[in-house]
Amino acid sequence: MEGTPDLAALQARLARFRDEREWARFHTPGNLAKAISVEAAELLEHFLWVAGEEEVAAVDARRGEVEAELADVLIQCLNFAAATGIDVVEAVSRKIDRNEQRYPAEKARGTSAKYTEL
Amino acid sequence: MEGTPDLAALQARLARFRDEREWARFHTPGNLAKAISVEAAELLEHFLWVAGEEEVAAVDARRGEVEAELADVLIQCLNFAAATGIDVVEAVSRKIDRNEQRYPAEKARGTSAKYTEL
Amino acid sequence: MEGTPDLAALQARLARFRDEREWARFHTPGNLAKAISVEAAELLEHFLWVAGEEEVAAVDARRGEVEAELADVLIQCLNFAAATGIDVVEAVSRKIDRNEQRYPAEKARGTSAKYTEL
Amino acid sequence: MEGTPDLAALQARLARFRDEREWARFHTPGNLAKAISVEAAELLEHFLWVAGEEEVAAVDARRGEVEAELADVLIQCLNFAAATGIDVVEAVSRKIDRNEQRYPAEKARGTSAKYTEL
Repeated sequence: MEGTPDLAALQARLARFRDEREWARFHTPGNLAKAISVEAAELLEHFLWVAGEEEVAAVDARRGEVEAELADVLIQCLNFAAATGIDVVEAVSRKIDRNEQRYPAEKARGTSAKYTEL
Repeated sequence: MEGTPDLAALQARLARFRDEREWARFHTPGNLAKAISVEAAELLEHFLWVAGEEEVAAVDARRGEVEAELADVLIQCLNFAAATGIDVVEAVSRKIDRNEQRYPAEKARGTSAKYTEL
Repeated sequence: MEGTPDLAALQARLARFRDEREWARFHTPGNLAKAISVEAAELLEHFLWVAGEEEVAAVDARRGEVEAELADVLIQCLNFAAATGIDVVEAVSRKIDRNEQRYPAEKARGTSAKYTEL
Repeated sequence: MEGTPDLAALQARLARFRDEREWARFHTPGNLAKAISVEAAELLEHFLWVAGEEEVAAVDARRGEVEAELADVLIQCLNFAAATGIDVVEAVSRKIDRNEQRYPAEKARGTSAKYTEL
């Protein structure tokens, strides 16, 4: 759809955003890894004392905030990829390949066990 | 380029991966928020005792592992988005809009201060 | 009881452990804050796909590992306190004082709401 | 010193605090593991874009906040221990024993390598 950005467009915006603010020097791999953890915890905070059905209700009650927290994690992941020269689509694709080998459907069906315990 | 998957293709693969293993029932928003935090920490672990130049060396020394950890964070983010009906491209796009307002280039240039302290 | 170490004895052992290995230079506040997050996530990993009753079963099934992960978080907290000159008993005591003001029993009873929403 | 609480006194206060608010039902092992991770990330946030000397300056500039965040991590660790019947002093003591075996001083001196790589 015209007007809908795609991943490459978001990456270009993030690069421009960083450069206009001269933030590249803060964007070290270690700093961005910290940022990903901090943003992940802000997302987790929305589910701190809830379980089961309440989790879905928590998202519905604060959808805008939850969306913004997820976006923050993704933004810092894209910044990390830019700082380290990682192609995110390829990296995710390769990891799904590996997960398909580690978790064969017939063995992993219906269980949350780690691949080392299958 | 032919053969290169895009974001939509990855999302389709992840949905199929989940469904073939009947994992949708594990993919509650709260469980996936936990998974994002756990994967983020596994990425952070690569930068635990290093600083400055050593951070780049740490990535170079273990590029494959670092890539795989970043991919794990992204995969759980995409799973979270699928479980909650969030459009990740729109969510990121909206968050960049907000960051542009919170961090005007002329005020934020060269400083890592939070927007509340600019 | 004779033979049972107390908090001060543990702190003394940790200081000696650090000094015998010349690790003080790794024990910067930022590195230790990363370590606390990483250890916390390793504890969280034990509860990744479980909920309700299963959480207690998860602890019972792997009590030794869970104990060791909790100990790791505590050890890095004590290392952080040593590196920054924080008195942990006083810090915790003061924070409980503040929580008693933020969460008056009559208002907070039976609810998990944050104090800003009471 | 008279008037200084010790660990057991803090644990007793935390148990009373929890019971007066009828919060035991929120204090499941999984919820408290999430809480430890969330509080750890709030501590980490103070070191997000700083490195080296700046880390110490960050603590000095906001000592009260840093202390309170460390206290929050410790409080949730003590709550976790109470909910699961773990003796924290014994757990930490045992983990130091194991670390002494894993990291012999002569091999670990001056290096931040993991024991599996020593």
